[in-house]
Amino acid sequence: MRRNSDFAHAYAVILAGGSGTRFWPLSRRRRPKQLLHLLGKRTLLEETVARILPVIPAERIHVFTNEVLRGQVVRCLPQLPKSHIVAEPVGRNTAPTIGLAAHEILRHDPQGLMVVLTSDHVIRKAGAFRRVLRAACRWAAVEGRSVTIGLKPTRPDTGYGYVRKGQRVARVAGQEIYRVQRFTEKPPLATARRYFASGNYLWNGGMFIWRASTLLRHLAHSKPEMARDLERIRRAGGVRATRTLRRIFPRLEKISIDYAVMEKAPEVFVVAADIGWSDVGSWDVVYDLQAKDAEGNVRPRGSLSLDARGNIVVSPRKFVAAVGVRDLVIVETDDALLVAARERSQDVGKVVQELEKRGLVELL
Amino acid sequence: MRRNSDFAHAYAVILAGGSGTRFWPLSRRRRPKQLLHLLGKRTLLEETVARILPVIPAERIHVFTNEVLRGQVVRCLPQLPKSHIVAEPVGRNTAPTIGLAAHEILRHDPQGLMVVLTSDHVIRKAGAFRRVLRAACRWAAVEGRSVTIGLKPTRPDTGYGYVRKGQRVARVAGQEIYRVQRFTEKPPLATARRYFASGNYLWNGGMFIWRASTLLRHLAHSKPEMARDLERIRRAGGVRATRTLRRIFPRLEKISIDYAVMEKAPEVFVVAADIGWSDVGSWDVVYDLQAKDAEGNVRPRGSLSLDARGNIVVSPRKFVAAVGVRDLVIVETDDALLVAARERSQDVGKVVQELEKRGLVELL
Repeated sequence: MRRNSDFAHAYAVILAGGSGTRFWPLSRRRRPKQLLHLLGKRTLLEETVARILPVIPAERIHVFTNEVLRGQVVRCLPQLPKSHIVAEPVGRNTAPTIGLAAHEILRHDPQGLMVVLTSDHVIRKAGAFRRVLRAACRWAAVEGRSVTIGLKPTRPDTGYGYVRKGQRVARVAGQEIYRVQRFTEKPPLATARRYFASGNYLWNGGMFIWRASTLLRHLAHSKPEMARDLERIRRAGGVRATRTLRRIFPRLEKISIDYAVMEKAPEVFVVAADIGWSDVGSWDVVYDLQAKDAEGNVRPRGSLSLDARGNIVVSPRKFVAAVGVRDLVIVETDDALLVAARERSQDVGKVVQELEKRGLVELL
Repeated sequence: MRRNSDFAHAYAVILAGGSGTRFWPLSRRRRPKQLLHLLGKRTLLEETVARILPVIPAERIHVFTNEVLRGQVVRCLPQLPKSHIVAEPVGRNTAPTIGLAAHEILRHDPQGLMVVLTSDHVIRKAGAFRRVLRAACRWAAVEGRSVTIGLKPTRPDTGYGYVRKGQRVARVAGQEIYRVQRFTEKPPLATARRYFASGNYLWNGGMFIWRASTLLRHLAHSKPEMARDLERIRRAGGVRATRTLRRIFPRLEKISIDYAVMEKAPEVFVVAADIGWSDVGSWDVVYDLQAKDAEGNVRPRGSLSLDARGNIVVSPRKFVAAVGVRDLVIVETDDALLVAARERSQDVGKVVQELEKRGLVELL
């Protein structure tokens, strides 16, 4: 009974408005990473929902996306109430979205607990993730507390923000809970190495848990103007008040929840999580996460490899032959072809920048 | 007057029935190398015809191809009389074709001089080539003589047969003419190096000149059975006697003119030619022959290269981005994609073998 009650007031808020460029040419403005089948039959967004459905029912899952993507999101999540899939008129980073979501949850449940989740990351250990979530929800059920999920680093990555663990305050539902000493920005390599070696740092994966009322109180304190505007939207009818939303939302400050709230809030805690997390930041990471043939290639069934090693080939419709090539990313779509060195995967965004510069809108 | 008279009895016989595999996926059974636009706006076959038209008029050009390709050949050579584009019922290598052609030429001109040309090679110095041809025609006008064009080697290539020069017998129209001491097969590397260093060897490029009557006399001597069958075809009406051709041609010995005639004939001569010849044997050679961008890439206008060097990209319709890759062959068609190391270009044929093994007929 106790175990179920941990999630009794939990509402998932899934952030699905992002539009990355690192999976071009597969990812496009109209089909960003969270809507791609990068790692299997389901999109990353579908996986995100499937992962929490055992503990948070569909009626308590809310997805925030943008107007271009909403139709696709509705189609890929038929189990969710349509009204729970909200299109923001413009992207204003995470703080305005989470504030909007908090009001929406309070409308349903004054004791509502928000579980803010990203939609474009991978979590390979779904059971472990739900155990972490249970601990976080139980701990965050106390008004005033903010909880973040900190991922145990597996390498000194310079691409993530880090959370410095402070005092261990409790062991809840089998999970260690620490006070957060501070949040840090993406560090240079030497710093990242020091963080990694110390064992005192966790990756900040952008997943947060608080009571909706706690979040709004913190927001009113740190960003009073934003809080007032969000309150105006609420009074007009919240996410259903499309015209008000279109009028007010675009003027909200474009700022992340980390900067707007978490770094300043009192009583911030972190659950140290070992859940097989990855932000799937590049084709190289997709390569790492996939099953490989005997020569270390990730490639479609029926494709041909002659003395080719360490390549990732994505080509849903076309026959591909790789001959004597090493460590490449080969991605083919109806209108574009990318051939990149795997170690240069992070530069794929530069291709998109160049397309923008050339005005090749149809390829974006 | 003398100069024109060198070509007065010259008939071009262009061999265009070949079906290589080394330019897959661009080359297919129905679109072999000679019908590809590998090096510009015109196909290699069109280039071959354009190159000789200044000295041999269209009415004296005959093309031998197969039934699958004939329609395409007719369309790409509208200046030729349709009846001069002959489809062989089956491929029997070069000797039967050349024998058939000899009869055809004799029908037009008892003094006819055959200029046998390949259709899928590159000759960058067309003027020099025509001067070589002039010398060869003048020398071969004497009944009994056979002339081959020997290409001055530019490297110790193991992919070609070689011709050992013997005594220099004349200088004709500015060209050196030698007796052929012997023809050799494709040599191992050490031998090729020795040949190359000696200066006594030329590449055998498969271009021959004799009077049609001389060739038929040699053939009657070395391959009497083939000669009798060809005579039967001639009596039935030659290349126009389709039914007889279909009955008799398939039973002719499948043998090259080199083996069947040249290696055994008396009075064989070679003109040493420096004409920018290449058999365009692989994608790597196409790379070598093409104009490159500042980073040494051969790639379509409008494609994108970020720190990519030494690649050849063929993709007529699709946008291609290459990032950080080196020395690749990237060829994209409607149904297939090849990505190969340029130095492994010669292994592209193995891809085709594998497709055959898998029964992927639609990709052949």
